[in-house]
Amino acid sequence: MEISKVNIDAAFAKFDGYWDPKIVAELNGQMVKLARLSGEFIWHSHAKEDELFLVLDGVLEIHFRDRDTVTLCQGELAVIPRGVEHKPVARGQVRLMLFEPSGTINTGEIVDSRTRTNLDRLE
Amino acid sequence: MEISKVNIDAAFAKFDGYWDPKIVAELNGQMVKLARLSGEFIWHSHAKEDELFLVLDGVLEIHFRDRDTVTLCQGELAVIPRGVEHKPVARGQVRLMLFEPSGTINTGEIVDSRTRTNLDRLE
Repeated sequence: MEISKVNIDAAFAKFDGYWDPKIVAELNGQMVKLARLSGEFIWHSHAKEDELFLVLDGVLEIHFRDRDTVTLCQGELAVIPRGVEHKPVARGQVRLMLFEPSGTINTGEIVDSRTRTNLDRLE
Repeated sequence: MEISKVNIDAAFAKFDGYWDPKIVAELNGQMVKLARLSGEFIWHSHAKEDELFLVLDGVLEIHFRDRDTVTLCQGELAVIPRGVEHKPVARGQVRLMLFEPSGTINTGEIVDSRTRTNLDRLE
């Protein structure tokens, strides 16, 4: 089996839309996803999954109910621990890489028009 | 508990040396590590861990015994499946991000002068 690589810019060129993550790699029961974000997302939490956000471009605020907002710029990452309610807010357009367990749903415990399941995997 | 962010450039400014990965985040039993690479590493494999390499700067070749070399440039990633013997070769200096299970040792099943255990965690 050949080992394929993923070029992040080329992967982003394969899809449009916001808040619609695509899978680019899977390892050890975790997935690496790419997404474009713009504006506000919904408040949610993930009961059993920690979630890593790495900002590739743009400025992403992560709001919390009970602690200070974390603002991520290009080349910055943060881990949102399981169970912590958060609301991502993208200032302008953000290109994001996520690293999280394979079963993680983008809206966590909430089901909403923005919930995405059965994500596409980019080849 | 505040949620802290990691600025990748600032994290690299905190350490020197090559082939000496530092931990910048941990989630879901996985670690995110940063390392500088230069020149050839040793042939090795990881029996139980898939390993993700994301090149932040530079050009990294990943050689295999039985399949084509994968060359990663800036903004490119690849997953090395568990059990697959590989040898990283950095052309010039490479800045690398790794995602892998927390117990992963840099030289896999080999113990050698380059083996690193008890990695520092950058705060």
